[in-house]
Formats: sequence, C-alpha cells, structure tokens
Amino acid sequence: MPSDDDDRAARVALTWLAEPGNRAVWSLVEEGGAVATLDRLLRGDVPDGPLRAAARARSADLDPRRLAELTMRRAQRLGARIVVPPDEEWPSRVASLATLALDVAGRVNQDVRPPLCFWVRGSWPLGETLARAVAVVGARAATSYGIHVTNEIAYGLASHDWTVVSGGAFGIDAAAHRAAMAAGGRTVAVLACGVDRPYPVGNSAMFDRIAESGLLISEWPPGSEPLRHRFLIRNRVIAAATVGTVLVEAAARSGAIQTMGRVLALGRPAMVVPGPVTSAMSVGCHELLRERPDATLVTGAPHVLEAIGRIGEYQSDPARGPEHRRDGLDEESALVLEAVPRRGTATSEELAVRAGLPLRTVLRRLSLLELAGLVERRDTGVALAPLARRAR
Amino acid sequence: MPSDDDDRAARVALTWLAEPGNRAVWSLVEEGGAVATLDRLLRGDVPDGPLRAAARARSADLDPRRLAELTMRRAQRLGARIVVPPDEEWPSRVASLATLALDVAGRVNQDVRPPLCFWVRGSWPLGETLARAVAVVGARAATSYGIHVTNEIAYGLASHDWTVVSGGAFGIDAAAHRAAMAAGGRTVAVLACGVDRPYPVGNSAMFDRIAESGLLISEWPPGSEPLRHRFLIRNRVIAAATVGTVLVEAAARSGAIQTMGRVLALGRPAMVVPGPVTSAMSVGCHELLRERPDATLVTGAPHVLEAIGRIGEYQSDPARGPEHRRDGLDEESALVLEAVPRRGTATSEELAVRAGLPLRTVLRRLSLLELAGLVERRDTGVALAPLARRAR
Repeated sequence: MPSDDDDRAARVALTWLAEPGNRAVWSLVEEGGAVATLDRLLRGDVPDGPLRAAARARSADLDPRRLAELTMRRAQRLGARIVVPPDEEWPSRVASLATLALDVAGRVNQDVRPPLCFWVRGSWPLGETLARAVAVVGARAATSYGIHVTNEIAYGLASHDWTVVSGGAFGIDAAAHRAAMAAGGRTVAVLACGVDRPYPVGNSAMFDRIAESGLLISEWPPGSEPLRHRFLIRNRVIAAATVGTVLVEAAARSGAIQTMGRVLALGRPAMVVPGPVTSAMSVGCHELLRERPDATLVTGAPHVLEAIGRIGEYQSDPARGPEHRRDGLDEESALVLEAVPRRGTATSEELAVRAGLPLRTVLRRLSLLELAGLVERRDTGVALAPLARRAR
Repeated sequence: MPSDDDDRAARVALTWLAEPGNRAVWSLVEEGGAVATLDRLLRGDVPDGPLRAAARARSADLDPRRLAELTMRRAQRLGARIVVPPDEEWPSRVASLATLALDVAGRVNQDVRPPLCFWVRGSWPLGETLARAVAVVGARAATSYGIHVTNEIAYGLASHDWTVVSGGAFGIDAAAHRAAMAAGGRTVAVLACGVDRPYPVGNSAMFDRIAESGLLISEWPPGSEPLRHRFLIRNRVIAAATVGTVLVEAAARSGAIQTMGRVLALGRPAMVVPGPVTSAMSVGCHELLRERPDATLVTGAPHVLEAIGRIGEYQSDPARGPEHRRDGLDEESALVLEAVPRRGTATSEELAVRAGLPLRTVLRRLSLLELAGLVERRDTGVALAPLARRAR
C-alpha cells in the first residue's frame, strides 16, 4: 500500500500532468488512487487521447515525481502547504462537484471534477475556514455603485462570522476581500495561479494581508501562471467550496455568470444584486435574474444572511465521518447519493432522472449505498440516512 | 323593461350612492339590473348594513335620479360622455375583476368588483383604445433614473402601437403619459376623481393634452374629489384594463405594490424595473421581485414587448359577441368560467379549487355555461368553447 506521503506527492505530480478538474484523471484516481494513476500516466497506460498526449509531452523532459518533490520543498520555504482529501483540514464541500459530472441534458461536463489537492498560504485550517463561507464575486471593471454594495455585503457577512471567499481580482473581488478584513473577519482568495505569485500583481499588498489574516489557496502548484482557461476551472471551486454565492456586478455573458450556473447546478443559493438598468455592469445580473428563476435577488447583507442562515447553522459544524465514507464512493454511487433529496423521499425512477443514470444502475447503486448506511428505504421511496443527512 | 337610457341613468345614480367596486351594489346589478338596484336602494330594500346606511344618507337631501340627470347634462357641456357595459366601446377586459371577488385564501375581497360605468373625455373609442394597452406606473417622488427608464419604456410601447395607461400622478405616471404622447401614441389617464377636474392640478396642461390626443377616464362622476381611498379603488382598473403592468419605481409598501398584487391575481404580466439597491425608490420593486416569483424583471421596452407580445397579438382584435354573453352571467358562473384554463382542460374539482366555490355549485354552473355555449365537456375535463376562448 502506498503511504500518505506517496499519495500526497502523486497528487502534486498529477497537477503537473493535467489541469485540475480533468474528468479522466479524477476517474482514474477515484478508481485506483493517485499513486497508481500517476504510474499509469507515466507508463502511457491510458486510452489514447488528449490526456495521454499531454502526460507524455509534460513528462518528456522532466520527471514529474522529482518535480513534485522540488515543488513541495520550495512551497515549504514559501510558507505554503499542500492539502489533500485524507487531511483533517480538507474542505469536504468541494466533493459535491462530482454531481456536476453530467449536466441537465445528460451530457458529460468536462473539467468540473473535484480538486485533487489545494496549495494553501495562511495559518487557518482550510476546512474550518470554509465551513461557514460565502462567495462574493463580480466584475473587474466594477462601478462605484458595485464597490459600495460589495463593501456593505462583505462587511456584514464577516461581522456575522462568515468567511468571505472571492477570486482576488480587481473590482468586486478585491472589495469583498478588503471589506471582510476591515470587519476583522476571515477571507479566502481562490487563485487560478500559484499561491507564491498571486495575480494580479496590482493587488500584491492585499494578497500579503490575506495570507496573514486569511488564506490564499490554489489547485495549481507554486510557480503556475494565471492562464486564461484556468479562471473558468477555478470558478467551480468558488461555487462548490461555499454555501452560496453573491454576484454583485457582471457584464453580459461574463465569467461570473458561468460561476453562478455552477452554483445553481449545485443547488446552492445563487444571490444576485440588481442595479440601474442603465449600467452595463448590471446587465449580466439582470439577465441571470430573468433567465434563472432559482436565482435570488438580494439588496444587501440582511438578504444574504437570510438566504444562507439556515444552511449556515446546519453547515457550521461539519461532520467529518460521513464525508470519509462518501469520498470512497465510485462516481455512479456518488451521483445517486447526491440525487437523494435532503428531506423526504424520492422514487428510484426520480433518482434515475436526477442522476442522469439508467434505472438499472440506480437500483444497483442504491443497494450498495444502503449497505454503507448512507440511504434508507422507506414506504414512499429512498431517503438519506441520518448520518448522510448531517453531511449534506 | 327599462330602456338603455334608464339603465345608463341608473348606473350614474348608483355611483352617487356607493363607491365603485362595491361588492353589494355590483351583485345586485348583476342580479336584477341597474334600474331595479337603484329602486331597491332608494326604497331601503336591502339588508341592513353600511350600504343601506350610505344610500340613505346620500339620498336624504338630493334625489340621485335628478342628480344623475344634471351630471350627465353637465358632462355633455364639458365634452365628457358616460360609457356603460352594453355600449360598443365598453372595455371588455375589466370584467375580469369579477375573478378577484375571492382572494387566494378564499376570503371575500371588498371593493374590487368591475366598474358600473366610465366617464370619458377624449374622442377615441374607449374599448378600442384599451384593446392594446399596457400600464406603466410608479412613484410620485420618482428619481431622474426612474423618469429616464419610464421615458424609454413608454416611448417604446407607444412606438409599437401600444396604448400607455397610467394614473396621471406626478413622477413616473406623468413621465409615462408624456413619453407616449411624444412618440405620437395614445395614452389613457385613469383618474380617481372627476374627468372635469383631473388631479393633480399641477399636471393640468398635460391632462388637456391627454384629452386631445388620448383619453381621460374615471369611474367617479364629474365634480368628484380625489379622496384618498379612491386611489386604491382606481388602481384595480389600471390592472384590469391592460394586458400587463410595468412598475418603474416604488417605495416600500406603496400603493403601486397593491396594483401589482391585483395584476398578478388577474394572471397578467407584472413587470418590474430594478434599480440601485441604494435607492429608496427601488425598494418596493426589489421587494416585489423577491416575494413574487411570478413577477418579471424588465430592463426596458424590449423586455416589456417580449412579455406582452403574445398576449397583444391575441388581444388586438377583441371579439365583442362573447363578452355580451358573459356580461349577463351571474357572479358564480363568471367565477367558474374564469377558472377554466385558456388552453387544455380542467376537472370540476380543479375548477372548484380555482374558483373558490363548492363542487356542487361548480357542477350546477357548468351545466348553465355549457348550455350558453361558453364551455365544452371533453374526455379529460372541461374546456373553453372556441367562442369564449376568443374573448379571453
């Protein structure tokens, strides 16, 4: 059996071979563990395709195992640490990204799988910090109106002991981080580059303050560049690591809209601040409110606290046990488990529709989930077992 | 049999004895006609209660029949006319107010019954002018933002041949009327006082222009004061006479919110313009969007046209025949008829729930409606007959 340290090093090496969220890598790790997956990738023992080609190209000149070792040593010098799922401080909520594997139409969503590891700068335990966390995101080209509203919301959340999560960008993101710190609260910047060189450089002083009073986290190893496509991959973590997300300003068809789509797909509160209809920076917000009836209009911290209140009380004491059980689930079982409603029951047919799986598969997986003590069969259908319910 | 002129005079006299929308008066008129109702009220032949007391007090010194005659002559000199349901130009859509008789909880709604008559200043036929009409309403203490958005919406609607209906007040109402006229379109001011003395006096020049290019209408006879409670009674006409209503700015718990409640109860598009969350004049709009998932966020004329488009095409050629048939319906039959879906069928049980009536009553009324050719029984339930469908 590989040791914990081997697993940790393999996960780091894997982030050199493929981008986080990669469907194929995640499935292999779920199946055989990180060490075996790394072996297979380095041997070329995976189906011919983009992953095999990428792994071959990226390991041609450098040994990823050696690179991982060097990276971890370098990170230690920088005061950064690597956090992996078996760790006590792993943020359990990101496992819900497994439910995004299939979109509503049943098509496979690429690159939205759960993270393999996080690089972390800052002294708070990651899981505890994200246990009561809300994301506040929005436009880089924010208006003074957007900044004003962000200040009010993030300050209000931090004052009520909520961690404010954002992406560290100019505009709304930076205002959210700063207001949380001004309230003496915790804030987490989820980066699309290495935690040693947070982007944008113009926010460097802010990032230093966040590292002191909160956390800088990233799925990419130290030294990684903030490549364009990484922001979209990063956004899924902002959506999944928090109990809900507030969008303050967004232009039409902006990246923040995509984040909100993920939030809604995860069944979390997607809270949207309206603005003047004459402002280009509110067009995306109004589009969302028109097109997604499940999005909630909020005008300030009280509305946000109202929307997350119930969830927050519920989530504020995350139970560790059941996540561990669920972490070990195969992908189909995880999809079925996520399809079971938090309250009440659902029939197998309903679960098949929600999970996007054939009925036969659902029935087979339900038997396993029942054996694992995660679901119960009742007269009216399938329900979450008390243990699994506490973990949702 | 009373003549049409008798009916007309009796309806005018009735508006001297009780406020428009009065439940008891409307039921008596539905039952026995306006002439017989006036006779009964003047004889005191109605159950003891506020209506009998009011009728006695208001007819103590003056003969309402004589008053009605004088009012009609005076109105003629002023260039105003009286319009009653049998008239060709009666706006058929206001009959839908009968469906507001019972609220969702099954409680009786006072003072929301259909109008008995309208006083009209302006040369356009009332029914035709309101056939393609949208209401644009909002705060008197509007901001420059609200005025700007109102201009855009009302101008856009008028340019697309929609009549813009509003209440003639300062702020949003006046901006809506003016923008419609600026676009060369028609506008209708629904007043809570006599059409000879439109309120507020500060808008006199605008009212004169509306009377020339559009219509001033009121349920109250010339000379009537704009008493406070009359605005709420008037609001139901703005909601019912139009295919949908746009709310531009509203303070918390304002009268415009009540209008939107009526719009939603009538199943019409309730369109709400958001604004800066920092503006007190948008608080009511945001409240509505949060509390009423059936309200629609709109940011300008294109969204409004999209929401009313289908209905408008449908309503632009109002069929007269069926309304005449339906005008004669008793209250219970009208409720049952309104409960029948425009498309598809409903079971008798469903109709009982929607109409708020006992199943036995629904079954009895359905037989009558079927005889009248207004509904059809099908295998799956009750449907609107083609004739009645055209009139909806």
